[in-house]
Amino acid sequence: MSSATKERLRPGGRSARVQESVHAAVRALTAEHGRAALTVPLIATHAGVTPSTIYRRWGDLPELLADVAVERLRPESAPISTGDLRTDLQLWIDQFVDEMSSGPGRIMVRDVLAGSGDGPDTCCAYTQDQLEIILDQAQRRGDPHPSIDAVMDEIISPIMYRIIFRGQTLRAAYVHSLIATCLARVAP
Amino acid sequence: MSSATKERLRPGGRSARVQESVHAAVRALTAEHGRAALTVPLIATHAGVTPSTIYRRWGDLPELLADVAVERLRPESAPISTGDLRTDLQLWIDQFVDEMSSGPGRIMVRDVLAGSGDGPDTCCAYTQDQLEIILDQAQRRGDPHPSIDAVMDEIISPIMYRIIFRGQTLRAAYVHSLIATCLARVAP
Repeated sequence: MSSATKERLRPGGRSARVQESVHAAVRALTAEHGRAALTVPLIATHAGVTPSTIYRRWGDLPELLADVAVERLRPESAPISTGDLRTDLQLWIDQFVDEMSSGPGRIMVRDVLAGSGDGPDTCCAYTQDQLEIILDQAQRRGDPHPSIDAVMDEIISPIMYRIIFRGQTLRAAYVHSLIATCLARVAP
Repeated sequence: MSSATKERLRPGGRSARVQESVHAAVRALTAEHGRAALTVPLIATHAGVTPSTIYRRWGDLPELLADVAVERLRPESAPISTGDLRTDLQLWIDQFVDEMSSGPGRIMVRDVLAGSGDGPDTCCAYTQDQLEIILDQAQRRGDPHPSIDAVMDEIISPIMYRIIFRGQTLRAAYVHSLIATCLARVAP
């Protein structure tokens, strides 16, 4: 889509309505029949659009599933702030690990990685934005804190590598040790 | 495949010949026509087998591509040993980064992650086995060295996260700083 086209779209316009009904059809059909049953014609019928609308907009089924997964991974609220950096990080990251290592979470990550677009980078940006909010709060309190790159490299990367490549269920003690090690490097 | 069936297979037997000719067909057709042109019937014709042989053995095209990618990611030789841990790690990891962030490397990783089997775990085990050889050599020399878990968490995970999620091209200076930080923790 050209940027001129993009600018002409408005939230709630026809394009946004098509996207919402197609996404909703994917979610409903997945819940009802399972993911293996999904086909573009079935999704189109359920969403009240033609299959060619879906092919024109998304290309093929994997690209549509990647788009739906990215949308579902978008954070819905700001991180909880307790006034303590370690607690804030633990609360947010514990929930992140729960979501990413759940059955639906693993499928969403797989769908995102199977797409050819910038879905993986968008998901990474969602995570990074949330963590930056937590780090900015520590900064404003004048508390020592690691850089966002350190948090991504030392905490998020090993978590995601173990979930994606090893299929591991991560223990809270392990996750908390990653956080503790990262924070210890910036201890006053 | 049951373990009883597996035990009955011998290298060079009919099953191994089918696998080799199908894998070779995938590699040749990819090189000649590009990956988007691959279909199970095309691969079957090129390999001299029936499509149903492929469906029975691999399930579908993504599972076959995952299997071919895992096989191509299998290391072909032991790591180079120079007698110095840091040098050995840098040589091996520099090559690993080159391979994984190349165009074909990124496609192989994506294919592996798109499969539903234990391909990702197998690839991770290939990496881990190679690094363990390097660490074992340091151990035998009596040199201080990190654990394999530390190397995977602190060096391999951030590299793979940045390649897979961010699509980044990694600078050698960044990769070497990950190695240096990991080694500094076990410095005598």
